[in-house]
Amino acid sequence: MKLATIKDGSRDGQLAVVSRDMKSAHMADAICPTLQAALDDWTFIAPQLDALYAQLNAGQSSTSTRRAFDFDPARCMAPLPRAYGRAVGAAYGNHLEPASSGEEPLIYQGGSDDLLGAMDDIMLAHEEWGIDFEAGVAAIVDDVPMGATPDEAHGRIRLLMLANDVSLRNLIPDELAKGFGFLHSKPATGFSPLAVTPDELGDAWRGGKLHLPLRSTWNGHLVGQPDAGVDMAFNFPQLIAYLCRSRRVRAGSIVGSGAVSNKDATLGYSCIAAQRSRETAADGEPSTPFMRFGDTIRIEMLDEKGKSIFGAIAQTVRKA
Amino acid sequence: MKLATIKDGSRDGQLAVVSRDMKSAHMADAICPTLQAALDDWTFIAPQLDALYAQLNAGQSSTSTRRAFDFDPARCMAPLPRAYGRAVGAAYGNHLEPASSGEEPLIYQGGSDDLLGAMDDIMLAHEEWGIDFEAGVAAIVDDVPMGATPDEAHGRIRLLMLANDVSLRNLIPDELAKGFGFLHSKPATGFSPLAVTPDELGDAWRGGKLHLPLRSTWNGHLVGQPDAGVDMAFNFPQLIAYLCRSRRVRAGSIVGSGAVSNKDATLGYSCIAAQRSRETAADGEPSTPFMRFGDTIRIEMLDEKGKSIFGAIAQTVRKA
Repeated sequence: MKLATIKDGSRDGQLAVVSRDMKSAHMADAICPTLQAALDDWTFIAPQLDALYAQLNAGQSSTSTRRAFDFDPARCMAPLPRAYGRAVGAAYGNHLEPASSGEEPLIYQGGSDDLLGAMDDIMLAHEEWGIDFEAGVAAIVDDVPMGATPDEAHGRIRLLMLANDVSLRNLIPDELAKGFGFLHSKPATGFSPLAVTPDELGDAWRGGKLHLPLRSTWNGHLVGQPDAGVDMAFNFPQLIAYLCRSRRVRAGSIVGSGAVSNKDATLGYSCIAAQRSRETAADGEPSTPFMRFGDTIRIEMLDEKGKSIFGAIAQTVRKA
Repeated sequence: MKLATIKDGSRDGQLAVVSRDMKSAHMADAICPTLQAALDDWTFIAPQLDALYAQLNAGQSSTSTRRAFDFDPARCMAPLPRAYGRAVGAAYGNHLEPASSGEEPLIYQGGSDDLLGAMDDIMLAHEEWGIDFEAGVAAIVDDVPMGATPDEAHGRIRLLMLANDVSLRNLIPDELAKGFGFLHSKPATGFSPLAVTPDELGDAWRGGKLHLPLRSTWNGHLVGQPDAGVDMAFNFPQLIAYLCRSRRVRAGSIVGSGAVSNKDATLGYSCIAAQRSRETAADGEPSTPFMRFGDTIRIEMLDEKGKSIFGAIAQTVRKA
C-alpha cells in the first residue's frame, strides 16, 4: 500500500492512504491518526490500512471510502515529519565520501526532528556552503532487536521512500576531520510524498535492494538515472543489522542508502559532488557548480510502465 | 517544576508531576498524556502542570490532587523515552576525546529512539567493548529557529536532566577515524528520573550552566564530584546555537553537555576514560579497568541542602 501524511497545521500531520495510481486519497483517521502511531502498532493497524487501500483502488463507494479526495503531493509533509531515529549509510561504493571498507558499511547518525515534505523549500543561509542534493532510497523499520542478523532485519522493513539528503559540501571536510560526524553539513532532509510497503514493489524489491532507476532532474535537466539495485555494496538488511549491533532500533526509525551511484558513468549522478569528482578525475578540476538559490531538484522513481511509485520530490532552494 | 514519565507498558509512558521533595507524584493525564505532548504546546500546557505542581507541594487535598501517589524512581522511564533529536557536545575542555577547538564546540548527533529509564539495566553483549559510564547534564529545548543566537537559544531551554551517555571506549578510535561519528560506540543513553524546569534550580542555573557538583558513584564508591558549572568551555545556549546554524531544532530535542570534567583532578571523574587518561599521563599506562557485567553506576546532583534535585540514575551493566 501507499501512505502519505497530509499537512493539517499540526507537527505530525494526518495519515492518509493513497491509491496506487496516486489519483485519490483517503484520510486514515478512522483507523490511526499518524504514520508513527501506525508503526507503533503495525501488525494491528497495517491490515486495516490495507483494507482501505484495496477499497480505494477498486473505486468502491462504501462507508469507509466516501470521503476520498484528489491526491495532491503539495499537501504532503514527509511521511514521517519527525522521526525518533535516522541513520544513513554510504551504501554505494563509488560515492566520493570516504569509502565503506570492503567488510563494513559506513553509516552516520542523522538529524530527524525536522524532515521536509516533498515540495517544501530547502531553506539555507549561504550558497557558499556548497549546496548539493543527494538522491537516495530510505527504509522505515519496525522494532529491531539488538544484535539482529541481516535476515532478521529484512523482515522488519515496513516502508520505503525516496530521500533528498541535502548536503553542504564545503562544510563536510572540516566536520569529517573532527571525527564527530555530520552536523552543519547535513541540514533538513526531504522525502517523497509517499511511503510504500515492499509488497507494492513486486520483483523490483529483491535481495534487500530496490532494483529501479532513480531519476534526478536539476533545473529541468535529467542529470542521473542510476539503478538503485546496482553497485549497492550493502543492502538495507545489512545496513540495519550493522546499525543495531550495540543497541535496539525502534519502530519508525529511518535508514537511508546515501546517494545512489552506478559505476556506469553514462547513467549520470545522484548528487553534484559525484559529478564534480568525475570531472576532477578527468580534467583536474570540477566544472559543475553547486546549487544556487532558486535552483530546483526533482527526484523520482518510475515503474516498468513509467508510472511514478513514490511521487516526486520537487524542491526549490531558497535563501533563509 | 519537576516532571517524570511513568512506565505503563506503552512506548511513551505517562507524564507525571513530582513534588519538589520527590515524595509524591500525580499523573498529569487530565492535562497532557506525555512529556513530548507537553513540549509540543509548552506555553499552553506548562502553566497547567505548574498549577498541579504547586498544589502537590502544598499538600492540598483538592479535586486535582486526590490521586497523588508515592513517587518511585524505579517506575520511571526516561523523561522522554524516545526523542526526535539528541545532540551531545564535548563541552568540558579536558575531556579525553578530540578537544573542542577554542572557538567552536564539538557536537555529535546521537541516537534518540531508545532512551533508558534511571534504573533500567545497561544491556550490552561484550565487556571487551570497553564499557564506560559518562555523567553529564542534558537540556530539553522548545523549537529553536535556524540561525538562533545563544541569547535566543537560552530562552528556549525548557527542562534539564542528568544523563549517562554510556560509551564503548574500545570501539571509539575506529569510529572517530572514519569521520562519520559515533554509532556502535554510543549505545542507549540513560536519564535521571526527573526533568526539571530551570526556574526550579534558582541561582544554580546561571550563565547557561548548572553550577553544582555532579556525583558519580561506581560500585558504591564515589569516583567524582566535579562541578558542572566549572570548566564548561561552551554553555548550553552556545551548544544549541551551534547546533541550529544550518537547521531548525524542534521541540523535545535533547542537547547534552558530554562528561562533566574539572581541571582540578582532586574532584575525581565522570567517566572512567578520563581517569585512565590521567593515569596514562602520570604512569605511562592506565590502571583502572572499564566496567564489568554486574557493575553499578549511580549519578546524582544534590542542592546546597544535600537534597537530590533530579533523582539518581542508578543502573547496572548486564550481559545482553
